[in-house]
Amino acid sequence: MTTLDERGRVVTWDDPIASWTAAQDLGGIDVLRAIEGGELPPPPVAQLLGFEIERVSEGLVTFAFEPAEYHYNPLGTVHGGILTTLLDSAMGCAVHSRLRAGLSYTTLELKVSFLRPVRVTTGRVRSEGKVVHLGGRVATAEAHLVDGDGVLYAHATSTCLISSPGSNEKRDHGAA
Amino acid sequence: MTTLDERGRVVTWDDPIASWTAAQDLGGIDVLRAIEGGELPPPPVAQLLGFEIERVSEGLVTFAFEPAEYHYNPLGTVHGGILTTLLDSAMGCAVHSRLRAGLSYTTLELKVSFLRPVRVTTGRVRSEGKVVHLGGRVATAEAHLVDGDGVLYAHATSTCLISSPGSNEKRDHGAA
Amino acid sequence: MTTLDERGRVVTWDDPIASWTAAQDLGGIDVLRAIEGGELPPPPVAQLLGFEIERVSEGLVTFAFEPAEYHYNPLGTVHGGILTTLLDSAMGCAVHSRLRAGLSYTTLELKVSFLRPVRVTTGRVRSEGKVVHLGGRVATAEAHLVDGDGVLYAHATSTCLISSPGSNEKRDHGAA
Amino acid sequence: MTTLDERGRVVTWDDPIASWTAAQDLGGIDVLRAIEGGELPPPPVAQLLGFEIERVSEGLVTFAFEPAEYHYNPLGTVHGGILTTLLDSAMGCAVHSRLRAGLSYTTLELKVSFLRPVRVTTGRVRSEGKVVHLGGRVATAEAHLVDGDGVLYAHATSTCLISSPGSNEKRDHGAA
Repeated sequence: MTTLDERGRVVTWDDPIASWTAAQDLGGIDVLRAIEGGELPPPPVAQLLGFEIERVSEGLVTFAFEPAEYHYNPLGTVHGGILTTLLDSAMGCAVHSRLRAGLSYTTLELKVSFLRPVRVTTGRVRSEGKVVHLGGRVATAEAHLVDGDGVLYAHATSTCLISSPGSNEKRDHGAA
Repeated sequence: MTTLDERGRVVTWDDPIASWTAAQDLGGIDVLRAIEGGELPPPPVAQLLGFEIERVSEGLVTFAFEPAEYHYNPLGTVHGGILTTLLDSAMGCAVHSRLRAGLSYTTLELKVSFLRPVRVTTGRVRSEGKVVHLGGRVATAEAHLVDGDGVLYAHATSTCLISSPGSNEKRDHGAA
Repeated sequence: MTTLDERGRVVTWDDPIASWTAAQDLGGIDVLRAIEGGELPPPPVAQLLGFEIERVSEGLVTFAFEPAEYHYNPLGTVHGGILTTLLDSAMGCAVHSRLRAGLSYTTLELKVSFLRPVRVTTGRVRSEGKVVHLGGRVATAEAHLVDGDGVLYAHATSTCLISSPGSNEKRDHGAA
Repeated sequence: MTTLDERGRVVTWDDPIASWTAAQDLGGIDVLRAIEGGELPPPPVAQLLGFEIERVSEGLVTFAFEPAEYHYNPLGTVHGGILTTLLDSAMGCAVHSRLRAGLSYTTLELKVSFLRPVRVTTGRVRSEGKVVHLGGRVATAEAHLVDGDGVLYAHATSTCLISSPGSNEKRDHGAA
């Protein structure tokens, strides 16, 4: 028997490959709306971290989460990597929302600026990701992390590489 | 009773504030060695993500983890934000390892380049963080993410702000 | 006698230290307005590159230039470093415009995304820099590079460290 | 007659398109060695800024310059954008040195950390660029800026997109 006190939590998740396979005939925005609507499960990492997709429109996607102690670094604040995961999800999905069926993307790089610490007392925070530029092979996006009062905690930019269907580039853009 | 099938996991963690309070009379490298040696608990986020501190020396700190399905994004690979969390931990702790007792740091910004996808089949990956520059107020660090064969999956740089003891800057470097 | 054909140019500039000394009792926005109004000379680098300060308001500064062949890299486009110089100037001055007399700043880092090549045929381009966050010790800014039709060619973010008057930190933030 | 006092300088440059056309049947390293050896002219921007290519080997290229007052920002130090131009040149050419004839590249993004101010008294500085990762479509590089004593002034990373010959992607990777 597993007894979970106040510092324990059970995490469960769904098979990500099955979901992705089911989704591969859909355009990006339809995949995201299926997750938003519950027809497709959220990805495992979202279940691990407690992230929720909050809003989906063309080129603009919002993720949110409730900061918890299990997100903390030794300094007693939410680890910057967790905030980055939220920002990256919002940026990547914003790009994905603009891709037609068969196109995929990978994040080549991202940069995040951390402005203020996020704590349990901060309450729910959301990351609004939006496409800055969409080209044939490359897209850039930006995202802002704000609390319920609109106070800014972090901001980020990223570069994504867009891949065509047949191409095996989808799985390894970089292998020499 | 909690029954966990192959897609479930129990996560527990320790009070991060208690640990941090206990550690505040120690120099950075002593805090890190106490975590490495098990005298201080790892931070909650490390327990959530399955990260372990692997090696600590002055200006050089290594973190590692075993990629698992619960780290996955919808594309069937470890989410870049999880890799960023590992890289950021290694960079931040490398800076911390050079700070005397009473000094603290916060990460102002980081940039990560993702070169190859990390999957369960990749096996254990490690992030080696090292200080590039240590000044009186600012430090920069870099980190590389490699698998057991030394293949490079991602690399990163970051900027940290160093704070003095009495200063309330430690908790909010940016508030206007 | 110097004969300058179509691929030659005479560059002259003013003593930057003299200007800076004259300006040190002014708040940031007054320094920038004095340059804009011609009471203070532009910095040497602006004269070398042909940059002009175009608009100054609190937290928002615009620089512009006419792309010329002397800005070209071997690929026959304006070198990305020149575009970065314009973007960095706009971001740094946007931060400066918010600093009271006696405060100074240095750029800790910047990141630039290049979206499209800039050529002579692009015509005049401008970089609009704006403050994203202003804290007591650190500020972040962003800038966009656009042509006369508003087409986006590059975008950037940066982190600045703010220094107090008496402090010798102004001149070397990083020396250990 | 042009009379140039101590704050004036004549800049001349060569037709960049002619050079590039002559070079397009050469592999990257041969183009760079032809510039190093004086058989091809340096690009206009190098003549404007006083940059010299110093060393070329496979995946490793060094550029250098003598800091001069005409590189100065209003703070009386070399503008960070000029340092970025040197770092970007070294990184881009390091990537180019690994590309066979017919392949081209563009810089998608770069990030630079500035550690110490560069002044005329610093003396000659050099930027050593090296390839971190070379894939089929994307490469990453890093560079360090040091003085004659090996003191580090700045460091940078960048992402380059690699383009095939026939493709018109070479000229505009991003146009939607």
